[in-house]
Amino acid sequence: MIPRIVRDVTQMTLLGAGKASPADLNRALLEAPILVGLDGGGDQAIKLGHTPALVTGDLDSLGAEARAHLGEGRILCTPDQDSTDLDKALEVLPDALLLCLGVSGARLDHTLATISTLVRNPARRIVVIAEDDIVFLAPRQMRMELAPGSRLSLFPMVPLRAESRGLEWPLDGLDLSPNGRIGTSNRVTGPVSLSVSDPGLVVLLERGAGDGAWRGENALRQAMAVMAAPTGW
Amino acid sequence: MIPRIVRDVTQMTLLGAGKASPADLNRALLEAPILVGLDGGGDQAIKLGHTPALVTGDLDSLGAEARAHLGEGRILCTPDQDSTDLDKALEVLPDALLLCLGVSGARLDHTLATISTLVRNPARRIVVIAEDDIVFLAPRQMRMELAPGSRLSLFPMVPLRAESRGLEWPLDGLDLSPNGRIGTSNRVTGPVSLSVSDPGLVVLLERGAGDGAWRGENALRQAMAVMAAPTGW
Repeated sequence: MIPRIVRDVTQMTLLGAGKASPADLNRALLEAPILVGLDGGGDQAIKLGHTPALVTGDLDSLGAEARAHLGEGRILCTPDQDSTDLDKALEVLPDALLLCLGVSGARLDHTLATISTLVRNPARRIVVIAEDDIVFLAPRQMRMELAPGSRLSLFPMVPLRAESRGLEWPLDGLDLSPNGRIGTSNRVTGPVSLSVSDPGLVVLLERGAGDGAWRGENALRQAMAVMAAPTGW
Repeated sequence: MIPRIVRDVTQMTLLGAGKASPADLNRALLEAPILVGLDGGGDQAIKLGHTPALVTGDLDSLGAEARAHLGEGRILCTPDQDSTDLDKALEVLPDALLLCLGVSGARLDHTLATISTLVRNPARRIVVIAEDDIVFLAPRQMRMELAPGSRLSLFPMVPLRAESRGLEWPLDGLDLSPNGRIGTSNRVTGPVSLSVSDPGLVVLLERGAGDGAWRGENALRQAMAVMAAPTGW
C-alpha cells in the first residue's frame, strides 16, 4: 500500500544506498520534497536527517532501527530477484519526474544496473544525480542551454544513430554502439540539440566545480526541463 | 617510441586519472612493476611516489611538472578524438596482462568508456581494479574459486547468452542484454564456472571488507588466473 502523499506527487526524490552527499540530497529535496528510500537508502535517508515517505525494495539491507523508525505504513516490500530495487520502485511509484541519488558510485555493478534501468524504461522521467555527472536517457529530440566548454558525454547502451548541434565533435548521423563508437568526453560549443534514432543513449552532463554554489545547478535544471517535456518514446 | 622495458614485459600496471588508492596501486605494482600512466594518470602516479615507465594519451591533462619530471623519452602522445586514453594505450602497448586502476570512479562517463573498452577488445587481457569491484570481460569459458556468499555480478553490454554453475541464481542458457535481463547482485555458492556465447559480458567480483589485508586479494588472483589463460575470443 502506497501512502497517498506518494501516489499523488509529480516529482519525487529517490535515495539508494550508494554514494550521496547531504548537499545533493538537500538540493534534490528542494525540487521534490517527497523522499522515497530504496532499501538500504532508507537507512541513509535517516542518517542524513530525513524520514522517507516510503521505503521500497526487497528489504534485504534495510536496518532494524530504520524499520522501527519508519513503521509498517511507510515500508513496501517488493521481492523479485530479477530486478533491482530501482526497477521495483518504478513499478510501484506513479509516473513522476524522479530525481535519483545514491544509485551509482562505489559499486560498479550498481552503477551499471542503474544505467540499464534508464534504458529499460525510456518512457519514465528519471534524472540521476551522480558524484560528477547529471545523467538521464536521451529522448527522441532534445535541446539544452549549457555552459560553452562544459563536458557532455553520450554513451550508447544499444546500437543507435544520433545527430547533434552545439557539440565540438558533432554526431552527424553517426552509428554509435557500446562495442563500437561511443560519444564520451564531448564538449559544448553553443545551444545543444540532439536527435536519436532509438531509446538507449545515456546523456552525462558535467556537474562542474561549483564555485561555492551547488555543483551542477544548470545541468540539473536543463536535465529536468528535458525530462519535463514528453519524451517521445 | 616505446621504451624497451615496456615493449618486453608480460604484465603491466596502467594508471588513469580516476580514483585509485595508494594501497591498490602498490598491490598492482607487486604483480606488474612496470607502470604506464594514462594522460593525467601520469600526474597521479608521481603524486603517489612512482615514476611511470611511460605516459600515453592525448596528453590534454598531463601537467607541466610531470612532463619535466618524466622527460620526452617516457612520454608518447597518441592524439585521436574518437578513442579514450585507455583505447590508445592498448594500440601501442604489447599484448600483456594489464592491471588497470584509476579508470573508473567519480566520472561516470569515464567508467562507461572503460567498460566499453573491455568489450571492444575481447582478445586483450585486462583486469580493472575499481573501488569496490575487480572487473574483467568474461572469456568464452572460465572457472573461479571464490568465497561462498561473495557477490558476483554479470553485466551484458551486448545481447548474449550465458550458462553458469556455482551461483545462487543460475544462468541456464538465459538471454541477457543491457536493455533486458542483466545479472547483477548474484552470489557465489561453490566453484564458479561460466560459459558465454559472445564477447560482451562484464564480470564484477566483490572486493570485500579486507579484514586488515588488502581488499580483494582472492578476487584479483582469480581474475588474473582467468585472464592468464587463452581467452577464447
